[in-house]
Amino acid sequence: MPYIKVDENLPGIRALLAFSPETAEPLGVLTNLLLRSNDGLSMAERELIAAHVSYLNDCFYCHQSHGEIAVCYLNGDRQLVEQVKKDYSNAPVPDKLKSLLAIAASVQQGGKNVMPQQVEQARALGATDKEIHDTVLIAAAFCMFNRYVDGLAATTPPDLATYPPRASQVAEHGYGNHVFAASQPV
Amino acid sequence: MPYIKVDENLPGIRALLAFSPETAEPLGVLTNLLLRSNDGLSMAERELIAAHVSYLNDCFYCHQSHGEIAVCYLNGDRQLVEQVKKDYSNAPVPDKLKSLLAIAASVQQGGKNVMPQQVEQARALGATDKEIHDTVLIAAAFCMFNRYVDGLAATTPPDLATYPPRASQVAEHGYGNHVFAASQPV
Repeated sequence: MPYIKVDENLPGIRALLAFSPETAEPLGVLTNLLLRSNDGLSMAERELIAAHVSYLNDCFYCHQSHGEIAVCYLNGDRQLVEQVKKDYSNAPVPDKLKSLLAIAASVQQGGKNVMPQQVEQARALGATDKEIHDTVLIAAAFCMFNRYVDGLAATTPPDLATYPPRASQVAEHGYGNHVFAASQPV
Repeated sequence: MPYIKVDENLPGIRALLAFSPETAEPLGVLTNLLLRSNDGLSMAERELIAAHVSYLNDCFYCHQSHGEIAVCYLNGDRQLVEQVKKDYSNAPVPDKLKSLLAIAASVQQGGKNVMPQQVEQARALGATDKEIHDTVLIAAAFCMFNRYVDGLAATTPPDLATYPPRASQVAEHGYGNHVFAASQPV
């Protein structure tokens, strides 16, 4: 039961965005900028960072949603996405991405947990300033989104089958208020 | 030393916003919506929630900045602001605000730390759905901002005297890209 009166037909953050459309707007713009770009990090890498941080924050709705969007970008490889979420260091992904996931995991613990050696390591593996910046901001933003969702006890659909159709929509059209509209299916 | 190459003349988050003006825009819009409103929570209450969460996240730049803005709204009562940051339960503020600060402190720990009893308590003391929503989103947003600042090791001016002039500007004109412009003094 959500802590505030929201549209019960909308799952997760979508009910909160509908409750507060004014704040939903910049949140949607930010999400599109951070996750719907291939400038530096790919869209798949961005979703993997979001899903991993959400997993660490134990936000089922968010890690399930963003994990499924990553699956769309990764040709349906759900096994890879699950491994990155839970144990990226042993997942078959490039070392550069692993070094950025390590930074994201530190951000999840707290800003000061990011160590200079982690940034040096990422840089040695080819990460640019923009990629390091985007990694930190994506991780930080999901520390917000996860808390927004669970802090207001937003409804989390337990049925895993409800996530892929929504993920396909986002993978095709991106985030934004049009996607959050109440008229959309789950 | 910041982890990425930013304008060294800009303190804290302002250097990061200048590094990434595209994401700075929705972040500025969100901050204005969350902190520059007297709809439900007052601007002073909103800044106190932001300062307390930043204090709990040990983000000196943010709790100092937002604490000083709260001081502006509270007729210079810095002692009250310091007490709310560090020990709100014994501060001379209304019980309703204390109940919302308790929710904010739980959000800082993690979304699932917010307990139904905390929300019931706030509601019994007169908090509306909008006030509870805004409290959770302000607290969640500062879990992002604090991590953005410290996760990239943004420069934190140690001289406390540099914060009040900047705080007066924000108290007078609000947040926004015009305030973050490089031409502005600290």
